[in-house]
Amino acid sequence: MITTDICIIGAGPVGLFAVFEAGLLKMRCHLIDALPQVGGQLSEIYPQKPIYDIPGYPEVKAQDLVDNLMDQIEPFHPTFSLGERVDTLDRQEDGSFIIGTNDGTQVHCQVVVIAGGLGCFEPRKPEIEGLEKFEGKGVSYMVKNPEQLRDRRVILAGGGDSALDWTIFLAEVAKEVTLIHRSDSFRGAPDSAEKVYELAKQGKINLVLQSNITSVNGNGHLKEVTITGKDKAQRILAADHLIPLFGLTPKLGPIADWGLNIDKSAISVNTVDYSTNVERIYAIGDINTYPGKLKLILCGFHEAALMCQSAFRYVYPNQKLSFKYTTVNGVHAF
Amino acid sequence: MITTDICIIGAGPVGLFAVFEAGLLKMRCHLIDALPQVGGQLSEIYPQKPIYDIPGYPEVKAQDLVDNLMDQIEPFHPTFSLGERVDTLDRQEDGSFIIGTNDGTQVHCQVVVIAGGLGCFEPRKPEIEGLEKFEGKGVSYMVKNPEQLRDRRVILAGGGDSALDWTIFLAEVAKEVTLIHRSDSFRGAPDSAEKVYELAKQGKINLVLQSNITSVNGNGHLKEVTITGKDKAQRILAADHLIPLFGLTPKLGPIADWGLNIDKSAISVNTVDYSTNVERIYAIGDINTYPGKLKLILCGFHEAALMCQSAFRYVYPNQKLSFKYTTVNGVHAF
Ligand SMILES: Cc1cc2nc3c(=O)[nH]c(=O)nc-3n(C[C@H](O)[C@H](O)[C@H](O)COP(=O)(O)OP(=O)(O)OC[C@H]3O[C@@H](n4cnc5c(N)ncnc54)[C@H](O)[C@@H]3O)c2cc1C
Ligand SMILES: Cc1cc2nc3c(=O)[nH]c(=O)nc-3n(C[C@H](O)[C@H](O)[C@H](O)COP(=O)(O)OP(=O)(O)OC[C@H]3O[C@@H](n4cnc5c(N)ncnc54)[C@H](O)[C@@H]3O)c2cc1C
Repeated sequence: MITTDICIIGAGPVGLFAVFEAGLLKMRCHLIDALPQVGGQLSEIYPQKPIYDIPGYPEVKAQDLVDNLMDQIEPFHPTFSLGERVDTLDRQEDGSFIIGTNDGTQVHCQVVVIAGGLGCFEPRKPEIEGLEKFEGKGVSYMVKNPEQLRDRRVILAGGGDSALDWTIFLAEVAKEVTLIHRSDSFRGAPDSAEKVYELAKQGKINLVLQSNITSVNGNGHLKEVTITGKDKAQRILAADHLIPLFGLTPKLGPIADWGLNIDKSAISVNTVDYSTNVERIYAIGDINTYPGKLKLILCGFHEAALMCQSAFRYVYPNQKLSFKYTTVNGVHAF
Repeated sequence: MITTDICIIGAGPVGLFAVFEAGLLKMRCHLIDALPQVGGQLSEIYPQKPIYDIPGYPEVKAQDLVDNLMDQIEPFHPTFSLGERVDTLDRQEDGSFIIGTNDGTQVHCQVVVIAGGLGCFEPRKPEIEGLEKFEGKGVSYMVKNPEQLRDRRVILAGGGDSALDWTIFLAEVAKEVTLIHRSDSFRGAPDSAEKVYELAKQGKINLVLQSNITSVNGNGHLKEVTITGKDKAQRILAADHLIPLFGLTPKLGPIADWGLNIDKSAISVNTVDYSTNVERIYAIGDINTYPGKLKLILCGFHEAALMCQSAFRYVYPNQKLSFKYTTVNGVHAF
């Protein structure tokens, strides 16, 4: 069991900055994120793109902002459980909580801060008859361990960077790689697309364009995949693995069942301290909503600061909070 | 008459960032500040000190933050009236305003944003009998034009950087310089203090420590100044000019008479859009108050963003506002 003052769900920019504001008030934080890396949307969706509206930064690359936030919170030694989804919340008799993840991690904390952004990123699943039946039995939506695909027949589907990158990578690993894409141009990086065309020309992979997967078959384990072209022609391909890579889509997930007031997939909060309707649970950043709400990074920063002033009472019930400027007081680690 | 969309009172960090948020929505801004430079408290009080709680900046010197904000708003070409205090507000029939300054500048605008921080910085005046009578007649609280002091007998009073710096500077300009200070150690930079002691030793200035000015005399114009030592001894010094430099203290000033709801020298706003009780007047940054308010720079940034979404309706009454990310949409000048 991990013990901390504040458990922050979501290690996007807002969850990260909350560690800093908490640290100034001597509150320790543990962060949990379903993604394998910190940074939320910035690192997952647009790491190399510039942001122009971070105050004081005429321009900053999304990943650089995340790196700077990590430097800024470093003095407070936050701890992380990455690649784990928060599933459960158990209120203890003394008002504190135990948070549980899908990997069995448990965190005991006085305060829960939901900084879950648009929610947990989950794979977008294509609508193919019978597909779910083979999940874990040949069908998966991400490549967790490429070694498991060594010398197997793998079918990938999709037109973005993941599909292109894994096609290139697996060309050297799998026995046979087929990439299926519904169009004949790719959304992913042009040089990756170039490389995929080249591999196909050399016969190192099979490239099937203008086609969709229409059904899957097997008994107990996936055996074959039916592909239908734009011209209606059908082909059946033998395969050990099918990996549709159609991107990630965020879902609020189990948090939706915690008794919080939800308004259009966002958690309603009040603007005094960004607390929810459940005592000791706060929601900050893209995941919350209130009159005037803007889903901007800079707004989440403000919300984090006010939230911490309020959360303090649960971590230090007998202390009075005194407000000090960092310029005057400095940043003191624990 | 200057014409603009939004007139921003105060060019501190929050007023400056408001230009950026307004610019994204194609609203032009004119800023007025009583100080001769932009940056508010940061440039006036602690330009060389580090700030640690600007999100994404593990450490940033106050003046550097101001410089970066100036770079960030540059594409939107804001205009400035510096060294002028806003005194008057006149509502026009169509709902717009004319703002007037103590220098006679007039600005016509659709929306007024008060980002006045702690208020106008005004000189802290010592309590000396009869002092006010000689204001502008030998007594002043800042050095506006040192040439006017050439070959005159000048008495300076104070123990901070201004008093030290002007003593050093005027030693070369005035006929006679006397610095009076109530203590015998200085609050200002140690090397400036060193230099002042040195000038006194060389006989280039008179240094009177452990003493206060207790009265002033003259007829029509200042003629002499009475100084009382800690030991109660009195001396009378002949002088053409007396310049008490006891720092600046912020005052809400005439804004207090504009019919705004004021709560302990701050303007009450609602947190949906940081509007005041007077339509088309907003208040952001240190000058406003609401439940949970923190006087932090990062909070003012958030307030500026939400305020602009609301102000838009007065500048473009017939347009619908659409919310776009800078990463996706870029930053377009006019
Ligand atoms: C293309 C694009 C451009 C953008 N441009 C800008 C811009 O220019 N300026 C701007 O201000 N904003 C911009 N944004 C929006 C900005 O990225 C978001 O406002 C910001 O990411 C919100 O931060 P956050 O920390 O609240 O949430 P997120 O960044 O979404 O992070 C939330 C994290 O919580 C995790 N999570 C959620 N639920 C769980 C759970 N149950 N268990 C474990 N982990 C969970 C998620 O995995 C995620 O990592 C842009 C967004 C996109 C997509
Ligand atoms: C020593 C010190 C250390 C600090 N450290 C930190 C820190 O670490 N972190 C943090 O977030 N904050 C810190 N602060 C607070 C921070 O400086 C303020 O929150 C910030 O300056 C507020 O910005 P603002 O733009 O609202 O107002 P200000 O910076 O106060 O600017 C307001 C401007 O409005 C002008 N003005 C007012 N009335 C009028 C008028 N009628 N006409 C014309 N001009 C007018 C003033 O001249 C002034 O320039 C510190 C403050 C001090 C003094």
